[in-house]
Amino acid sequence: MRIGVLGTGSVGRAIGGKLAELGHDVMLGTRDVGATMRGPDGEPEDESFAEWLGRNPKVALGTFAQAAAHGEVLFNCTLGDGSLDALGSAAEQLEGKVLVDVSNPLEYDEGGMKLFVPSGDSLAEQIQRAHPEAKVVKTLNTVNALVMVNPGSLEGGDHTIFVCGDDEDAKASVVEILRAFGWERILDLGDLSAARGMEAYLLLWIRLMSTLGTPALNMKIVS
Amino acid sequence: MRIGVLGTGSVGRAIGGKLAELGHDVMLGTRDVGATMRGPDGEPEDESFAEWLGRNPKVALGTFAQAAAHGEVLFNCTLGDGSLDALGSAAEQLEGKVLVDVSNPLEYDEGGMKLFVPSGDSLAEQIQRAHPEAKVVKTLNTVNALVMVNPGSLEGGDHTIFVCGDDEDAKASVVEILRAFGWERILDLGDLSAARGMEAYLLLWIRLMSTLGTPALNMKIVS
Repeated sequence: MRIGVLGTGSVGRAIGGKLAELGHDVMLGTRDVGATMRGPDGEPEDESFAEWLGRNPKVALGTFAQAAAHGEVLFNCTLGDGSLDALGSAAEQLEGKVLVDVSNPLEYDEGGMKLFVPSGDSLAEQIQRAHPEAKVVKTLNTVNALVMVNPGSLEGGDHTIFVCGDDEDAKASVVEILRAFGWERILDLGDLSAARGMEAYLLLWIRLMSTLGTPALNMKIVS
Repeated sequence: MRIGVLGTGSVGRAIGGKLAELGHDVMLGTRDVGATMRGPDGEPEDESFAEWLGRNPKVALGTFAQAAAHGEVLFNCTLGDGSLDALGSAAEQLEGKVLVDVSNPLEYDEGGMKLFVPSGDSLAEQIQRAHPEAKVVKTLNTVNALVMVNPGSLEGGDHTIFVCGDDEDAKASVVEILRAFGWERILDLGDLSAARGMEAYLLLWIRLMSTLGTPALNMKIVS
């Protein structure tokens, strides 16, 4: 499948690299291709993007609009506070596409991490309202980039990932990708308003990360 | 131990009943003793409070202030939107006490459930700021009343409960009570600001409840 991945930070790299490894035709999108190749790309990484691309020669790089035009399915892996801008610059290319939103509406405040969307809303819903012709599916935002594409690295994969969205066919195609990533416990939480809880959970996740001393964590839902 | 439990709804009954069963000297507190005995108490229950008290004869009933005066350790089991008022009516009796906050800052809005505290704050911290001489410990708010006092009813108890607070001795005494309730996976998330994530998680919990069709659910944290 042709897939466009918007964002070249740790999440975009993890997802883009994994999709290419699975045989998909992947283009990563960025605001400024030259700046991304010169690096740093705004998010400090152990490896420059140019080095990463050297290790992942099957992945192409383009602008947000080029990556969106390339993909039949799109992943939004930009930072939450830049997501609406990034997607806005590729608005026409989003129409009719499955848009997998992995972002989180987090901002650092002097008092700690906060959500920048009000309670009763979510970034996923803001994206859907801004792009009503896209089929937004929220998933993977509740785990770290490395867990996203390698759930088996944690407790043999015996933990839960959530998915929600208003379009059932779009969700089904995303669930297929999640299975290819190795996810077995995939919980469909219904329509896109479930993203409110999936995003709000990040406030707990951040504290779990500092308490446990690792971002390699997740939850298994039991009932 | 003498324990005061503020609130006579499902949470206050579950915790008060369990504490009495464990041999503690329990008084439940309410705004208006007569109204509570006449019932309903504002939160519809299968059983009237008077019937419940008949089945739990060792539990006493008093006003919020009387229950707070009675207890060496106090539980706030009032609804979130009434917690500050209820605790305010017992302010002098809170001083120096361990105050276990089980409440959630949830309100129903036409668009669904929302948090009524802003991101970057929590109801537990609001309670602590209003009563600086109390030792507020947040716990148990992430599970349903029946799971609170019977974790073994779910997956043999193999799931996680959180605790946080600014006073280490207060937290240790609450952890002891949690162990008596049957909790084995108790995760100390640090100071009281961790309550932000513990409360925000409720937005996910609500959707999990409707998706799974039961409030008897929880998460097991894996890392």
